[in-house]
Amino acid sequence: MISKAGTFLLFGNSESNADILYGSGFASHDPYCMLKHEGRSILIISGFEVDRARRQADVDEVWSGYELVRDLAVGRKSSRHKVGYASILVAALRKIRSRSIRVAADFPIGLADRLRSSGIRVHVLEGKIFPERIIKTDDEIQCIAKVQRAAEKAMTQAVNVLKASREVGNRLLYAGRTLHVDTLRKVMQVALMQENCTAPQVIVAVGDQSVAPHNVGSGPVRPGQPVVIDIFPRSIQNHYWADMTRTFVKGKPSVQLVRQHRAVMEAQKLALASIRPGVECGRVHRMVERFFQANGYETHAKDGMMQGFIHSIGHGVGLDLHEDPTMGRASRVRFRKGMVVTVEPGLYYRGVGGVRLEDLVVVTAEGVRNLTRFSKKMRL
Amino acid sequence: MISKAGTFLLFGNSESNADILYGSGFASHDPYCMLKHEGRSILIISGFEVDRARRQADVDEVWSGYELVRDLAVGRKSSRHKVGYASILVAALRKIRSRSIRVAADFPIGLADRLRSSGIRVHVLEGKIFPERIIKTDDEIQCIAKVQRAAEKAMTQAVNVLKASREVGNRLLYAGRTLHVDTLRKVMQVALMQENCTAPQVIVAVGDQSVAPHNVGSGPVRPGQPVVIDIFPRSIQNHYWADMTRTFVKGKPSVQLVRQHRAVMEAQKLALASIRPGVECGRVHRMVERFFQANGYETHAKDGMMQGFIHSIGHGVGLDLHEDPTMGRASRVRFRKGMVVTVEPGLYYRGVGGVRLEDLVVVTAEGVRNLTRFSKKMRL
Repeated sequence: MISKAGTFLLFGNSESNADILYGSGFASHDPYCMLKHEGRSILIISGFEVDRARRQADVDEVWSGYELVRDLAVGRKSSRHKVGYASILVAALRKIRSRSIRVAADFPIGLADRLRSSGIRVHVLEGKIFPERIIKTDDEIQCIAKVQRAAEKAMTQAVNVLKASREVGNRLLYAGRTLHVDTLRKVMQVALMQENCTAPQVIVAVGDQSVAPHNVGSGPVRPGQPVVIDIFPRSIQNHYWADMTRTFVKGKPSVQLVRQHRAVMEAQKLALASIRPGVECGRVHRMVERFFQANGYETHAKDGMMQGFIHSIGHGVGLDLHEDPTMGRASRVRFRKGMVVTVEPGLYYRGVGGVRLEDLVVVTAEGVRNLTRFSKKMRL
Repeated sequence: MISKAGTFLLFGNSESNADILYGSGFASHDPYCMLKHEGRSILIISGFEVDRARRQADVDEVWSGYELVRDLAVGRKSSRHKVGYASILVAALRKIRSRSIRVAADFPIGLADRLRSSGIRVHVLEGKIFPERIIKTDDEIQCIAKVQRAAEKAMTQAVNVLKASREVGNRLLYAGRTLHVDTLRKVMQVALMQENCTAPQVIVAVGDQSVAPHNVGSGPVRPGQPVVIDIFPRSIQNHYWADMTRTFVKGKPSVQLVRQHRAVMEAQKLALASIRPGVECGRVHRMVERFFQANGYETHAKDGMMQGFIHSIGHGVGLDLHEDPTMGRASRVRFRKGMVVTVEPGLYYRGVGGVRLEDLVVVTAEGVRNLTRFSKKMRL
């Protein structure tokens, strides 16, 4: 926490609000509230979830929203079924004698406005509610590494299908049929599920599709064209994410594609070698940018779309897929021991296609420890 | 939309903000903005996503956040890398000559406060930004029905495993090993993935675990004990959810459990028969509550936890798993043709265990059409 003083309020479900999951350790698809008051943590939840929360949440107390409001409404006509979160929170804040709360920037405005109109001061934090999330404990690193192992198992499945496929004209035959990206995606998603991970999206982008890095891809896999596979699974059990990307070609790639792949591989080596505690994140991005430029790879808008090295060199990974540190060109954040980040240079040009190589690493005292063991070979 | 007048602003990613997905048809794990201005829809997104958004989003225009701010910063020292969403949105609002926006209650307060301090009036809507989401089109119903088919395929897998298992003392043997809920969960999740659906959670709760309806369950499956299986998958392709629950017993159930299952089945029949356009949602809940009471099933706190019929009779399902209409005891919402809702009576008592039966239905002109075809038989 930024400071132990004051009352912090979190609201959300654990799937989309990683802070409340981090703070309470409680997984719930439905939203709930959490108060941090002078070092004490209180979870406030629907009556029928109280028992489960008491057993599963890593908090000091669990309060039933219903009971808070019932206590409040004693002697009045029962308003049990009309109360919302605001009334419940007003009651909770009365109980801990606090009239002022701090919330994160993503706190819902509707609830904040209702609290304000009940006389609660709502202070919006400039920074994160748990800035310590940026540094991972050994346990967290183990969780993330486990998910990366699952990602690698899934990647292996895709490689096996590509290897087993046969070039016929401008398509690939696999198990007697034209190989589509959907087949690759499905074998990977099933493999991830076997490892207790989900991945609502797995990017399998072919040829020019891969020039838009978030295009999930569609249609047949083409021989000689790059196939960018970006896997970002989340563990069902520990809730941590992992992230990795490889670029493959079945058949003969163009000379430009081979050069581009080599440049991205070199850039990744450079980036990995330059990360250590104290180095600015933005510096690593700029170094890669300069390396690409020096090798003739310009970044610019062309034919109405950005081409070249068009995204950050990486990002933090944890209970959010994209979290601190930010690693864009202007990031002044300095690497620290225990950060877990992707290192993912990429080059994207229409006509040649995209190449991205993404590893997941832990920052150590001396440099990085790579959580990714998968080969970077492009030709299958 | 509530009204076509004025400027509506949405912000979020399509995984956790169903409104922005509904409004734009654009799937993105990273957050983006959408403006609805006098009937015109504008998506505002990171430069490297513009091209994909132009091809995939169902909006009138796609603007690059970077370009908006670059146009603004002409002649100034470039602030390209320091701008956040607030500056981008201020530029966008200037472009459409609007200084006042309407946002939903879940809009992030940090962004709202920044807009306000830039002189933008931010009005928080009392209701939903797309109240029309409550009524599903035929296309949407087809999407949901397809996901429910996937849920049923997964449920069939679990039933097959339970059927193939053998009672040995107080456990079940399957493929030579003690059957754990994790095995059931995994066969279902893999089956869902085969159908292009994800389900981060599948509830498989045994015996008293099932008394807490959101306990996902753990440990060995016990003969003679209820196994409550609640599957709520989401399609990777169409993004709609489905939801269904069945309660099974392998071996000989207690007399109380058999009675309880019969009562829940009767309650569900009653509820399904009472739903039709014009009927209040809360009325169906109260009817089920009275039916249970009349049959000796009280709802009350006991041993520190709520027991009996402890949740709403159902909820809407669509791009959110839990969406309008609410169907708790006090809900004054009236059923309308095209609503898609769960009907899920349940009874939960320590010592006996939980029983829940959940179907997913469409409200029609005459009553309901059940999207769920799965048997309700308890004993396997």
